[in-house]
Amino acid sequence: MASLSPRERIVRSAAQLIRRHGVTGTGMRDIVADADAPRGSLQHYFPDGKDQIVSEALLFMGEAAGRRTQRALEKANKRSPSALFAAIVAKWKEELLDEGYVAGCPLVAAAADVVATNSELREVIARAFDKWQDPLAAALVETGIPRRRSEELAVLVITALEGAIILARIRHDTSPLDLVVRQLSPLLDVAASPPALRRLDR
Amino acid sequence: MASLSPRERIVRSAAQLIRRHGVTGTGMRDIVADADAPRGSLQHYFPDGKDQIVSEALLFMGEAAGRRTQRALEKANKRSPSALFAAIVAKWKEELLDEGYVAGCPLVAAAADVVATNSELREVIARAFDKWQDPLAAALVETGIPRRRSEELAVLVITALEGAIILARIRHDTSPLDLVVRQLSPLLDVAASPPALRRLDR
Repeated sequence: MASLSPRERIVRSAAQLIRRHGVTGTGMRDIVADADAPRGSLQHYFPDGKDQIVSEALLFMGEAAGRRTQRALEKANKRSPSALFAAIVAKWKEELLDEGYVAGCPLVAAAADVVATNSELREVIARAFDKWQDPLAAALVETGIPRRRSEELAVLVITALEGAIILARIRHDTSPLDLVVRQLSPLLDVAASPPALRRLDR
Repeated sequence: MASLSPRERIVRSAAQLIRRHGVTGTGMRDIVADADAPRGSLQHYFPDGKDQIVSEALLFMGEAAGRRTQRALEKANKRSPSALFAAIVAKWKEELLDEGYVAGCPLVAAAADVVATNSELREVIARAFDKWQDPLAAALVETGIPRRRSEELAVLVITALEGAIILARIRHDTSPLDLVVRQLSPLLDVAASPPALRRLDR
């Protein structure tokens, strides 16, 4: 992260720490240390304190998930919804294995901590999820899902993926991720119209 | 909870607090206060400290989810896997609405906090999930799912339900729960063999 500004490093460090320890478990000092940021820079860049850093970190991660979806679509070569889903899941599996399952989805980690107590952050998490869900719905349309069904199937994919990440982390086993791809692929591919009809459907 | 022993009240209070605030966000003092337990009773009943209380609370909640599955099966009258799933989800919707979305699944809340840092508690969460997954797989068999597919579909139901609970809490909206039932019902019902064949399949 050497080429990033201190501000960017702080946001990225906060996001990674939240993935591991949640919002409550991530202290300002941990963020400064992890970002290798100058003392006093938190106050300088984030005058509104921890909630401001956490908000930016969560929105950054929502956008990152959206961009990742776009890359998965390119990798899946727009063949089918199931190929897109498999490509998204493959990236998650790679990360879980590389990191030894210590880090999950930052939006889920934050939700577990703050939904009950912090309505501003809850709304930020909702916006962060939208930044993932909207590009995912658009990507599903690219694979042949009619636009009218794409939002609903994007939510289904996100719920199953989030649940599978949680189970995989708990069990130290990626098989729940393979399982949701295997089980949902026929459902997703049946929902896709054949290529010849896609133009009409959109 | 007046008829429960102090020990039982402590376990239940810990579970409910974890649902709202996670493990890190739940202090020993909060548990004593919520359980209305005598000072010093924590040390008396739980000499191994907070992890012991948390472990018992999580296993208790896993068992409760298993019993709840059994009640949902009775309510669904063994008609179909989708009726079972809908009955399980209906209970969750009721709770989310009654509680104003402040409390989610304690196993997910605990996972978000401890997977990265506490391997003993991680294994407890895995066991607690089994106490839900095994009765759910058995209940799916009762609705006509072949035994060989029941475990896999139980995992699918759990992942989608957990993901939907998270989205519902973040959005203050139960529609993700309705959505997963709507989307997964055909898949579940197609997997069920017709009643006449159930005996052969089992």
